[in-house]
Amino acid sequence: MTVREQAVTLRQVASLAGVSRQTVSNVLNAPERVDPDTLSKVRAAIETLGYQPSRTARSLATRKAGLVGYCLARQPGHSLFMDPFLHAMTEAIEASGRHLLVFTAAPGVDGLRTYADLVAQRAVDAFILSDTVDDDPRHPWLTDRRVPFASFGRTWPEQGDEPGPWVDVDGAGACAELVSKLAAAGHERIAFVGWPDPVGAGRDRERGWRGECQRLGLSNEDCVALPAPAGSMAGAALAAGELLDGRRPPTAILAASDLLAVGVLSEVHRRGVDTWVTGFDDSVLASTVEGGLTTVRQPTDQIATTLVGLIDEARADRGVLLAGEIVVRGSARLGG
Amino acid sequence: MTVREQAVTLRQVASLAGVSRQTVSNVLNAPERVDPDTLSKVRAAIETLGYQPSRTARSLATRKAGLVGYCLARQPGHSLFMDPFLHAMTEAIEASGRHLLVFTAAPGVDGLRTYADLVAQRAVDAFILSDTVDDDPRHPWLTDRRVPFASFGRTWPEQGDEPGPWVDVDGAGACAELVSKLAAAGHERIAFVGWPDPVGAGRDRERGWRGECQRLGLSNEDCVALPAPAGSMAGAALAAGELLDGRRPPTAILAASDLLAVGVLSEVHRRGVDTWVTGFDDSVLASTVEGGLTTVRQPTDQIATTLVGLIDEARADRGVLLAGEIVVRGSARLGG
Repeated sequence: MTVREQAVTLRQVASLAGVSRQTVSNVLNAPERVDPDTLSKVRAAIETLGYQPSRTARSLATRKAGLVGYCLARQPGHSLFMDPFLHAMTEAIEASGRHLLVFTAAPGVDGLRTYADLVAQRAVDAFILSDTVDDDPRHPWLTDRRVPFASFGRTWPEQGDEPGPWVDVDGAGACAELVSKLAAAGHERIAFVGWPDPVGAGRDRERGWRGECQRLGLSNEDCVALPAPAGSMAGAALAAGELLDGRRPPTAILAASDLLAVGVLSEVHRRGVDTWVTGFDDSVLASTVEGGLTTVRQPTDQIATTLVGLIDEARADRGVLLAGEIVVRGSARLGG
Repeated sequence: MTVREQAVTLRQVASLAGVSRQTVSNVLNAPERVDPDTLSKVRAAIETLGYQPSRTARSLATRKAGLVGYCLARQPGHSLFMDPFLHAMTEAIEASGRHLLVFTAAPGVDGLRTYADLVAQRAVDAFILSDTVDDDPRHPWLTDRRVPFASFGRTWPEQGDEPGPWVDVDGAGACAELVSKLAAAGHERIAFVGWPDPVGAGRDRERGWRGECQRLGLSNEDCVALPAPAGSMAGAALAAGELLDGRRPPTAILAASDLLAVGVLSEVHRRGVDTWVTGFDDSVLASTVEGGLTTVRQPTDQIATTLVGLIDEARADRGVLLAGEIVVRGSARLGG
């Protein structure tokens, strides 16, 4: 006997409760239409038999798949943060009584075909988007078709508002706060190591660093930004070497991610200098690297639960900017 | 107008083709029952209208959810490998015409309730299991209920065969091969840094290292295994320090994972010694760490496609052991 053969049927519930199958279906999907006596009688039968409606039956009754789609992006370095995010997202969706369907899609416009297929098959009720790019084509496409979605990350449109609801972490704010704390600790030459050709989030972090340096009256010559070649750890080490070889080497370096920060830190350690280094993400690297990495923690669980709330709301114009939290470890001994 | 309102219905296809709705349904779900003329007529109508059956309708007809369940494990360090695996798994499931439903569950017996709910709701047709532990309770539970599954990783039962189909990477074989190549390069003192209280895969790798050292006649005093406290990068650096402080320090250290290897390597670099270091996984760390890390690549795509093949086969007794591939980088300049 397989599980499927053993499963209690709706017919058995109806028979035990002495009602029609349609009444049982109403109890499950539109209890407000059922009178209280019948409701409690059917619920008692469901309880007694241990009946669980199949997801297919429920989908048919509610016209909902009970699934939310999420596209995995292939970005090995990035995944240091995106993997914990996926866990948090899965848990938040489960807490709302649904499950996450993960899929892959080509980047950009080409990937829209995959979204279109999932919409046409009614395989999902909504999408969670992440790994957003500037003027991301997915957001207006879903908005036009009134498919519910919520975006982790902004799309930085050249004009107008973000297309649809979003949650993001205030990278500019967190980097400005790092600069402010470094300056309070006596640093005046504060450099930045970022990605080559950064997308929105990378630019945002650099903008926060630059703005605060300027606000504090630090000189542009003392506060230099360099891209890490190939966006790699080794590239970040090279960039750090170039900065430290300068005439006025920085005493502190902000890196746009933990991965880049570990590269910067390896060069700092190699030279035996006391340059302070900060990262971004509070990934697994940050707590395991020698001495620990001072970094910015993204509020993963809060991002996930906020996203779930946004897909269930009718308003399409909400944006939620969450603060990152500075986590102090050995690589930059910042005060409170 | 929403997408759902615009969607082409089965009724419209039937009307255009001049057949009943049941015939259209047969074309979709049991084409062998339909005569060729009708088949091509209905398929032409489907093509013309751009009809896509909803997943719910198809589930009802085929009694299949079209979804395979996969439980995400919360293991931050481990995720350096498991994240690429999830990507490969998602693609392999998609290539088979299904999607992956991800979920979370408590570890051990407590998590079985989550599997039971998904089975009872018929939310998934099969499971992919990973992060297996010794005598994992999920495997016999699913086997007893004839729910199809395939396991990435063995469960190392105390007696008898693995319960159900599995794919694994031959960690013992790969570590033996590393020892053999290190010995060929002149090393005689080859240490091992692993996890404290290792589960199956960790033990397997250590066994492969130990076995080959013994086979080559290297002395147990020269080939020592130490656990990395807390299984962390910092712990691995401590273990490496202890090994290098010994009376006969190793000239090569195998680490049970890339994360541990990076910790070992940081201590080796700090001391400026020429100890060779190898990792396991070929994760993002291995290619970005200074000089590059020699490591063992798991054939992620092959693991994923083999797992998909196994859930679709009737035989429940198949096990597939795949070889890891040694990837040589700067940390251990092994010959071919």
